[in-house]
Amino acid sequence: MTKLSEQLSEQHLTELKRQMKLYVQGTQEIIPSEELEAKLAKSLLENRPLKIKLGLDPSAPDVHLGHTVVLNKLKQFQDNGHIIQLLIGDFTGKIGDPTGKSIARKQLTDEEVKHNAKTYFEQFGKFLNMEKVELHYNSEWLSKLNFEEVIGLAGKITVARLMERDDFEERIAFGKPISLHEFFYPLMQGYDSVILENDIELGGTDQHFNVLMGRHFQEKFGKEKQVVMLMPLLEGLDGVEKMSKSKKNYIGIDESPQEMYGKSMSIPDELMLKYFNLVTNFCPEEIEDITAKLESGSLHPRDAKMRLSKTIVSMYHDEDAADKAEQEFIAVFQKGNIPEEMPKHHWSGENIVEIVQLLVTTGLFSSKSEAKRMIAGGGVRLNGEKVDDATLQVKIENGLIVQVGKRKFVEISVK
Amino acid sequence: MTKLSEQLSEQHLTELKRQMKLYVQGTQEIIPSEELEAKLAKSLLENRPLKIKLGLDPSAPDVHLGHTVVLNKLKQFQDNGHIIQLLIGDFTGKIGDPTGKSIARKQLTDEEVKHNAKTYFEQFGKFLNMEKVELHYNSEWLSKLNFEEVIGLAGKITVARLMERDDFEERIAFGKPISLHEFFYPLMQGYDSVILENDIELGGTDQHFNVLMGRHFQEKFGKEKQVVMLMPLLEGLDGVEKMSKSKKNYIGIDESPQEMYGKSMSIPDELMLKYFNLVTNFCPEEIEDITAKLESGSLHPRDAKMRLSKTIVSMYHDEDAADKAEQEFIAVFQKGNIPEEMPKHHWSGENIVEIVQLLVTTGLFSSKSEAKRMIAGGGVRLNGEKVDDATLQVKIENGLIVQVGKRKFVEISVK
Repeated sequence: MTKLSEQLSEQHLTELKRQMKLYVQGTQEIIPSEELEAKLAKSLLENRPLKIKLGLDPSAPDVHLGHTVVLNKLKQFQDNGHIIQLLIGDFTGKIGDPTGKSIARKQLTDEEVKHNAKTYFEQFGKFLNMEKVELHYNSEWLSKLNFEEVIGLAGKITVARLMERDDFEERIAFGKPISLHEFFYPLMQGYDSVILENDIELGGTDQHFNVLMGRHFQEKFGKEKQVVMLMPLLEGLDGVEKMSKSKKNYIGIDESPQEMYGKSMSIPDELMLKYFNLVTNFCPEEIEDITAKLESGSLHPRDAKMRLSKTIVSMYHDEDAADKAEQEFIAVFQKGNIPEEMPKHHWSGENIVEIVQLLVTTGLFSSKSEAKRMIAGGGVRLNGEKVDDATLQVKIENGLIVQVGKRKFVEISVK
Repeated sequence: MTKLSEQLSEQHLTELKRQMKLYVQGTQEIIPSEELEAKLAKSLLENRPLKIKLGLDPSAPDVHLGHTVVLNKLKQFQDNGHIIQLLIGDFTGKIGDPTGKSIARKQLTDEEVKHNAKTYFEQFGKFLNMEKVELHYNSEWLSKLNFEEVIGLAGKITVARLMERDDFEERIAFGKPISLHEFFYPLMQGYDSVILENDIELGGTDQHFNVLMGRHFQEKFGKEKQVVMLMPLLEGLDGVEKMSKSKKNYIGIDESPQEMYGKSMSIPDELMLKYFNLVTNFCPEEIEDITAKLESGSLHPRDAKMRLSKTIVSMYHDEDAADKAEQEFIAVFQKGNIPEEMPKHHWSGENIVEIVQLLVTTGLFSSKSEAKRMIAGGGVRLNGEKVDDATLQVKIENGLIVQVGKRKFVEISVK
């Protein structure tokens, strides 16, 4: 317990503990945890809300579940009366990459920045009360710095400290060039915290180095140092890589209920509990209950994942939409008893093919006449839908499921 | 021979060769030599003078012989009709060292910069026709750069390239910190050349890295690259360290003829020829002649050094002053046969002392009465001058030479 918290009333102390427990939940790292407690204690004592900063890259405005890990944490702070400061890194966006090498850092116009920011805010409205959020654009102060001020900023950090950043260290080790201007991105992020005078900065664990810059520069400028809160990274649908738009392994929060439900069902079983923890609003007790039931075998993983999927859809649409998405999923996939794993056929023929030809090529029948008889008997389905016409022209698509009877399946894959 | 020089007339070709020979003399390194030739050829063909840049640190305006190595080279260019661009690095001087660690880089006011620049120019007038010299202050353009432009500049160089600078490399090897702002001094020097569009930049060999930055940035900004000319560094009176004000091993060009002559005589014999080469206007043939005579023993090193000293004095004063300084030197030192090496006495007593006390304290006599007798006999000299009065009050000064008879000497040193 810090000295400050000793001055707190019983009521404040209870409140302090309640909030601490909330903020710690699901957070990977708090640097340093005792400062968070001290700041909260001071906030309660002085009845002054804390300021929580989140920096946003203006070039990628599509919010997906990966972002919601941080957004849910911000919501907790806002729900408890603290002030959220959203910082659009538009200065970086506007200058782009002076070497012209990075496509991700192409120069954005004022209009693009504004449009992207608007897109963010519309989506953030699903988490935060945007009327209470402070919006900042760092071009406001960064574009005004002159060379002398930049030198002053650069004088507050050593080259060795910057080279500790993982990606820089790696590039140096492999002899890959680092352009000097790249050293300035962490400096900017740090200087933003000097200007915003925020108490806390949130980020993913991959932002470890950059977010610590805020602490470093606030101290160098004689300000109170921010607490750094790092949230775990959410792996995408592939179960391996961090969820991101560029990896196409994401669930966007603006996607249709059907897409959202279907994508959620494709998450690997091992990640289910992490998703429950990080992207749903389930309390720790509920998640413990699910964990126990999965372990004991009293809850089937498929059923747990259906609950997760339904929860995700209802969070970004509503209960009805979630119900409907689930029903459709069951109708198409589960009613046909489509198994999770099935043989794949790598299609290398024409894009459009007659159904009987498809059934022979995939090896489900040895002759077209056999295939025709089965269609007539109502035993052939495409993506769960019965095929009535033996002359049907089928459009080949990746993931097309060809089913014969109740047990035989082939999934088409197209390179 | 370059292609351009093939277009030159016979007359131009002769002129080209003459100038090249002149500029190469005494220069340590020309990067690259063939470009200097091409630039000269173009200059002759187009009847357009070349622009020669010299950067000056505004914090140390006392010109000494070490500087004259570069100044003499500049004079050659000016004498041949080329344009000298003196660049006062006042931007660096005005910002000082943001970490406050470097005393050498303390922040200068506008007035100090102006005063220092004026001092430079007065002294440079002894070498150059200052009316034909272009004066530039880099704060003119550097202070106007905004953050975006600084990032653009930083984007044109890699961290690895900067770390190649000897002193950076060494500090990294020994784990000594480099503050990020230090990376900007070479960038500024390079950017100055982008603005000045100079053809050549001169510097000492210790400026190798920084002067090459001009080539680098001119190329990155799509300009014609400057040729780099590096002059050898002149060791100071100690014969070891580079001549500099802070090392107190210098001969200032504003010093009195006596000081200048005396200091020149104290140069180690091994450095004499280097001084003839770099700080006098002797032509190569004269220097070869001196070298040969020294080697054969037909010229005594002391006599050669006297010629050097007299030449140096006459360059910054006149022939008469040089003659007079030499006569005085002979009167005081050579006539008294004062040896080059003598015992030193570290004086720790009063500043003013009676002559007999001085003679006893330094151990030249064991009693005051003995000392008095010797004075009466005319056998005591201070700095070569006979002492007649046994009650003389002597002012103690560093380097004071106390002589008894023809063989006993003590040199006083004061800490």
